Amino acid sequence: MASGESKAPSELRQDLVCGDWVAIATARARRPDAFAGGDRPRFSQPLDSCPFETLHPDALVAYASDGKPARAESWWVQAIPNKYPAFGSGQCAVFYPRGPYQWTQGAGFHEVVITRDHTRSIAVMDNSEVRGILRVYRDRMVTMREDACIKYVSVFHNHGKTAGASVTHPHSQIIALPVVPPDVGRSIRGSETYFHQRRACVHCAIIDWEIKAGERIIYENDRCVVVAPFASKTAFETRIFPRRHSARFEEATDEEYDALADALRTALAKLARGLDDPDYNFFIHTAPVEQAGETDHYHWHMEIMPKTAVWAGFEIGTGIEISTIAPEDAATFLKGVS
Amino acid sequence: MASGESKAPSELRQDLVCGDWVAIATARARRPDAFAGGDRPRFSQPLDSCPFETLHPDALVAYASDGKPARAESWWVQAIPNKYPAFGSGQCAVFYPRGPYQWTQGAGFHEVVITRDHTRSIAVMDNSEVRGILRVYRDRMVTMREDACIKYVSVFHNHGKTAGASVTHPHSQIIALPVVPPDVGRSIRGSETYFHQRRACVHCAIIDWEIKAGERIIYENDRCVVVAPFASKTAFETRIFPRRHSARFEEATDEEYDALADALRTALAKLARGLDDPDYNFFIHTAPVEQAGETDHYHWHMEIMPKTAVWAGFEIGTGIEISTIAPEDAATFLKGVS
Repeated sequence: MASGESKAPSELRQDLVCGDWVAIATARARRPDAFAGGDRPRFSQPLDSCPFETLHPDALVAYASDGKPARAESWWVQAIPNKYPAFGSGQCAVFYPRGPYQWTQGAGFHEVVITRDHTRSIAVMDNSEVRGILRVYRDRMVTMREDACIKYVSVFHNHGKTAGASVTHPHSQIIALPVVPPDVGRSIRGSETYFHQRRACVHCAIIDWEIKAGERIIYENDRCVVVAPFASKTAFETRIFPRRHSARFEEATDEEYDALADALRTALAKLARGLDDPDYNFFIHTAPVEQAGETDHYHWHMEIMPKTAVWAGFEIGTGIEISTIAPEDAATFLKGVS
Repeated sequence: MASGESKAPSELRQDLVCGDWVAIATARARRPDAFAGGDRPRFSQPLDSCPFETLHPDALVAYASDGKPARAESWWVQAIPNKYPAFGSGQCAVFYPRGPYQWTQGAGFHEVVITRDHTRSIAVMDNSEVRGILRVYRDRMVTMREDACIKYVSVFHNHGKTAGASVTHPHSQIIALPVVPPDVGRSIRGSETYFHQRRACVHCAIIDWEIKAGERIIYENDRCVVVAPFASKTAFETRIFPRRHSARFEEATDEEYDALADALRTALAKLARGLDDPDYNFFIHTAPVEQAGETDHYHWHMEIMPKTAVWAGFEIGTGIEISTIAPEDAATFLKGVS
């Protein structure tokens, strides 16, 4: 990907004050007046105009519902390049000055993971179908992490318009980045500090406590625990932790992926049934790409964030979210949804 | 406010991993099933059911449009207690353990700043009317900061439903907190690091560069500069900086408040005219409450964030926003709006 003079579809710019990064993706630009109210995309999209109905000629990986590599007639899940990528080929690891600031090219990958059924969301899939999605996440993550440019691979899924889905057909996205994202960096540093102080994993401590306390447990199976976090950022925030300590999602065992498929499907089904199919985002937090195992203290997990409230001026201005239901009550409610 | 056994309307809980705080405000709770789709509040509210039409009997401060203290018939702007506060009287500076976690009471203040006209948003006000709003922000901020519990006062304004406004009548909110919010803390630490390295204010360096470069300047007057930030987090993000270095909004001069009123009104008018009245949030970033001037390196400012895009899984999972217009183009566009 470090292809000489080629230019990435975006710029990553660093905030001079707090050090955070933002992406300016002008390759996906709308004209300024297209931000005005009348021109926002419509949401409901009929089957006959859906771009995600067939196996893509450039599919990067595809599986049938039995987990075997798929042909056109048998595909269940595929990964394809994003038609409007925010990150792509470009010069990585070069930081350019601009006045007092710095920026770097948005070198990386941007792919879409599509399941075959136009209306079948993860909440109503079978475990084996969800397992296929996880298989594609893992395959693409392993491949992307081998690229010398890549520092982090973000896997995420947007369900519903208010959660940012611009295509109704169920799909996830994978973005590989040339920098460690700020929120992931903070999480890694918090885990590292705890480890240096206690010689223990902070997430293992959380999992142990939550199992003992019980009040925020939503669901458990043999290898995963589903929890409403003590410091939930949104109402009904849900996290899925593997019981076994492991820094990297892509190093999970087959049995762990089976258990994760069950836990993810169960958690999303409970949200859909309990809260009338709310919009939500979920994403994976996993260790960044590094050489020497220096983030082995980290513990990968999955976070589901329902869109139960709008982020307003207080949240944006302070970083403190106000959640109007206690995580204990959210857990009790979701636990009771069959 | 540190009133013995009384209990605040919320809990502030600390994330064990990254150290961020969240507020669990169960005093404002909805029942779990009220988060389901059908029960979300309607937005358009007629004048005759508006709670903000008269001078409140418990108004904390009120001014007429000429800047003089107001009576019932002459009021233009007032601050009143929030009827559904997220923060209120309670025990502060006590951090309670809960398993491996800690939390503290949501002790503080939560007030609403209301202008008299039901439909007149800041974008269409006169400068003197905006000046009255700033006068109330300052008065309340000064009063709240004198309370021994308070570590930070957040002033913010939500315009439109997607920006989190639940009442259509134009209003701002002021929340005083017993902790320094995470985003403010990161901004302060970034400013501190820059100051220790260069013996200079990072925001002054930004202002000097932006005036010299010119390409991201939206508007200037004698005491304020309006800029599209180099690392904009949303399309058309707009920041207003006072030219004079000062850590605290409430220590501005009368001439600076006059200039800020002009700059804020102009910036919001350009957004409203250029982008067909988009929803937006704005807020003030100012130094936290401290004793010894240790945050004198900070530079207060105002940030306006239009709701031009949805925060989706990538943004929530990484903290990297993807903006689809370059700040230079946004500035050129807004500069051209009369």
